[in-house]
Amino acid sequence: MARAATKRRGGGRAGNAARRGGAVIEQMPWRLPVNADRPTEPLSEEGVAAIHDGAMRILEEVGIEILNEEALEIFRAEGATIDGTNTRVGREFIMEMIGKAPESWTMTPRNPAHELVMGRGHILFGNVSSPPSYWTMETGRKMTGTRAMCADLIKLSQYFNCIHFCGGYPVEPQDIHAGIRHLDVLYDKLTLTDKVVHTYSLGKERVEDAIEMVRIAGGHSHEEFEASPKFYTNINSTSPLKHDQPMLDGWMRMARAGQGLVVTPFTLAGAMAPVTMAGAVALSLAESLIAVALAQVIRPGAPCAIGTFTSNVDMKSGAPAFGTPEYMRATQMTGQMARFYKLPMRSSGVCAANVPDGQAVWETEHSLWAAIQSGSNMVYHAAGWLEGGLIASPEKFVMDCEILQQLQRYMEPAIWATTPGDLAFDAVAEVGKQGHFFGLQHTQDRYTTAFYQPFLSDWRNYEAWDVAGAVWTPERAHHLYKRIVESFEPPAMDEGIREELADFVARRKAEGGAPTDF
Amino acid sequence: MARAATKRRGGGRAGNAARRGGAVIEQMPWRLPVNADRPTEPLSEEGVAAIHDGAMRILEEVGIEILNEEALEIFRAEGATIDGTNTRVGREFIMEMIGKAPESWTMTPRNPAHELVMGRGHILFGNVSSPPSYWTMETGRKMTGTRAMCADLIKLSQYFNCIHFCGGYPVEPQDIHAGIRHLDVLYDKLTLTDKVVHTYSLGKERVEDAIEMVRIAGGHSHEEFEASPKFYTNINSTSPLKHDQPMLDGWMRMARAGQGLVVTPFTLAGAMAPVTMAGAVALSLAESLIAVALAQVIRPGAPCAIGTFTSNVDMKSGAPAFGTPEYMRATQMTGQMARFYKLPMRSSGVCAANVPDGQAVWETEHSLWAAIQSGSNMVYHAAGWLEGGLIASPEKFVMDCEILQQLQRYMEPAIWATTPGDLAFDAVAEVGKQGHFFGLQHTQDRYTTAFYQPFLSDWRNYEAWDVAGAVWTPERAHHLYKRIVESFEPPAMDEGIREELADFVARRKAEGGAPTDF
Repeated sequence: MARAATKRRGGGRAGNAARRGGAVIEQMPWRLPVNADRPTEPLSEEGVAAIHDGAMRILEEVGIEILNEEALEIFRAEGATIDGTNTRVGREFIMEMIGKAPESWTMTPRNPAHELVMGRGHILFGNVSSPPSYWTMETGRKMTGTRAMCADLIKLSQYFNCIHFCGGYPVEPQDIHAGIRHLDVLYDKLTLTDKVVHTYSLGKERVEDAIEMVRIAGGHSHEEFEASPKFYTNINSTSPLKHDQPMLDGWMRMARAGQGLVVTPFTLAGAMAPVTMAGAVALSLAESLIAVALAQVIRPGAPCAIGTFTSNVDMKSGAPAFGTPEYMRATQMTGQMARFYKLPMRSSGVCAANVPDGQAVWETEHSLWAAIQSGSNMVYHAAGWLEGGLIASPEKFVMDCEILQQLQRYMEPAIWATTPGDLAFDAVAEVGKQGHFFGLQHTQDRYTTAFYQPFLSDWRNYEAWDVAGAVWTPERAHHLYKRIVESFEPPAMDEGIREELADFVARRKAEGGAPTDF
Repeated sequence: MARAATKRRGGGRAGNAARRGGAVIEQMPWRLPVNADRPTEPLSEEGVAAIHDGAMRILEEVGIEILNEEALEIFRAEGATIDGTNTRVGREFIMEMIGKAPESWTMTPRNPAHELVMGRGHILFGNVSSPPSYWTMETGRKMTGTRAMCADLIKLSQYFNCIHFCGGYPVEPQDIHAGIRHLDVLYDKLTLTDKVVHTYSLGKERVEDAIEMVRIAGGHSHEEFEASPKFYTNINSTSPLKHDQPMLDGWMRMARAGQGLVVTPFTLAGAMAPVTMAGAVALSLAESLIAVALAQVIRPGAPCAIGTFTSNVDMKSGAPAFGTPEYMRATQMTGQMARFYKLPMRSSGVCAANVPDGQAVWETEHSLWAAIQSGSNMVYHAAGWLEGGLIASPEKFVMDCEILQQLQRYMEPAIWATTPGDLAFDAVAEVGKQGHFFGLQHTQDRYTTAFYQPFLSDWRNYEAWDVAGAVWTPERAHHLYKRIVESFEPPAMDEGIREELADFVARRKAEGGAPTDF
């Protein structure tokens, strides 16, 4: 990586800011960004109709394996054709059920100021979820995830205002036994953050534990808790054409509890899905829509969203690829279909790169632009993801937050306002051919808010940057991440609630946690 | 830059391909990409009208300094109000003249297979132009540009099919005297490439030399040469509100010779332009439209395009920033205005970063997406730009070409086709719940062209990437650039034409080249 990158050390601008004490960076305030641009729509009206028909034919003629007795009984009662676990449903039933799902809904975490709106043009970003491994510049190698690493990433998720929700384990802490892992991590998440959290649907005990812990953390009665969504689950189908037992169990439990429901088939074109994007999207939709229908039978009006994870493999090696041109178009196509079905949509910030370098950024940029262009409402894995989701990295997390801030600033209509003051005719007339606009009153009145201010980009010229240590982006991100984690202060929490949470965790551990036979 | 990045060396996948000999990489074929997506349009109809009115008021009430006697006479004859060099023109005149400019036009280089279409939905990409300095991983420091560095970048511009035209000096070769620099570099460009080239408008001798050399290289008579555009010039106004003598001289010469004309004000909001984007865009338009009008008086139907280079400064330091949220919106706004005026548009691929790291990629990505979203037809500086245009880098060039290939693949409608074959119902029915799609006939029939294949991205998992040397993106790009340049073969050229070109250069050098008193 060249002597230029290694010859000197230092934190650069960010390091200086950190050494001054106080807030590590000046960041943008919390807000729910609204994406008012027209989405990019590759499909014609006929194309939308064709993909809809493709998804419906899969549901009507091929069927989905529903590996859950209770769900099978529900579908049977609704008139589905069941053959073993193969479940075929008609398009009238599907469309009637989807019609009951709300176009938008809210989730309210323990801090109501961090309430989220799913839909209505909003685009919300969350941290990387579920990598088994961790990479930081401190060691420069891939390591097995631990609770300490996980906690650091949770702190970053709370710290950055551009991160709206705290998804699954930001790295899977394998130093905690799998039977009690959900208890310790959810305790960390609920005490270190006050943002919307998530539960995996991995068996009834984990889901019931999560429901109870989120209820306790919010200080809700059972009735208050179920009156509106406080958190959510995300399930993945086992593509092609299969929904597994524990995922469906969690899905139905969360539906009954009135909580948020996101279903995201993982359809890698050429592997678990057709090699063609239209075919992969149709398969993905068939798998997600049958889950939405199930939720609507259980609880009409249940808050649902459909996700897309349609990418492609490298046809030479079979390796999954992310942020590709095909990924972008599949995401946009799914966005058109989500609007056709009037459902909120989830997509992701992803890459195949192994380290936080140029490739990592162009792949992540492509996936984030696809999220924006598709009209996605919820963007998973938007900070910290590497190696196709196998690695979480704090440096990548901080780099992604710089990008996310810029994308959120990009959505502010003030940039393109055209009032007389914005048109600045008098300022141009005043300056004329001479001089510049720096000192002008028109400029002075506006300069503090006129432009986005980065916290990680270094805009100094080469010579100034060189004198300051010639620090490349990942190393600047490393210094920032360390400072943020070291100076992190958890959000306020009522001491009684914290004790109740801790007692709950202790009791459930004493009871043996959750089965690990999944 | 971390031990992970430096611990081992090697070319990775690209290096292996290179060592196999033959073509260094498998790249996409030459094509003129068509951007069929609806542009992103932040401005309402009223906003477009307001910015148009703002630009017209600047031309009518404030005026532009026209520092060229001949141009002043032309404007005077057309009824402009001249006060010294201050030139005010009415909106009726401007709109009448702009109405004469073609909505699209072509440029035909010495290899007609590389003819370019400006407009009609095309988006064309060119190399970085005009940096005084050079940065490569080989030295890891900023160096003064030389002819050898310049030639390497010209070779990259010819080699990559995703680069459509060869703009200005890809790095300014300061080991050649300024009086003859244009002769040597244009000789290198015309012999090392067969793509569309450019001339700076820096005094009549340079422009006349360039016209003659491009004519010779194409084997044209004077009449053939002037019958249609073969190359182009790009001029920058001296914002605010000024067009300089040599730029206007070149502009008028190229107009008379029937060649391509691009005018790009460099309006940094908060410095040479108002701090507001609407004001900066209106100023930029006033400066560019008066140049287009001048060309239309000289030669009605002259092939013109307007460029945008509206970005913002860092209000803390005054440093220019690139690829910012404000830059993106200003580019999109200018795109709306270019469509309003029915003129082709130029924008750029830019960044403020000093080295080819993550920041360089996110800033470049933002500017390239702005180019696409704005409906730009010509994208300058799309490969190799660093430090706000002060540095050219071959590693950055190769990284940018990977991005450009992906963006061009992204525009291929095959990705989102919805024929029955694309919908793949039979393939889904055949695979059912079992197995995967790898071995299927539907997949076998399509897998070689179904997905984009990168030449620089490394999609291997961490362990395979680590064993192969753990090579980060810039170093992979470095190895590729070296191999491409080492194995470069210039495009065929008639020996008589080459001699005529060389003789012309020798004669003009003997005559003393061009004055350097600009």
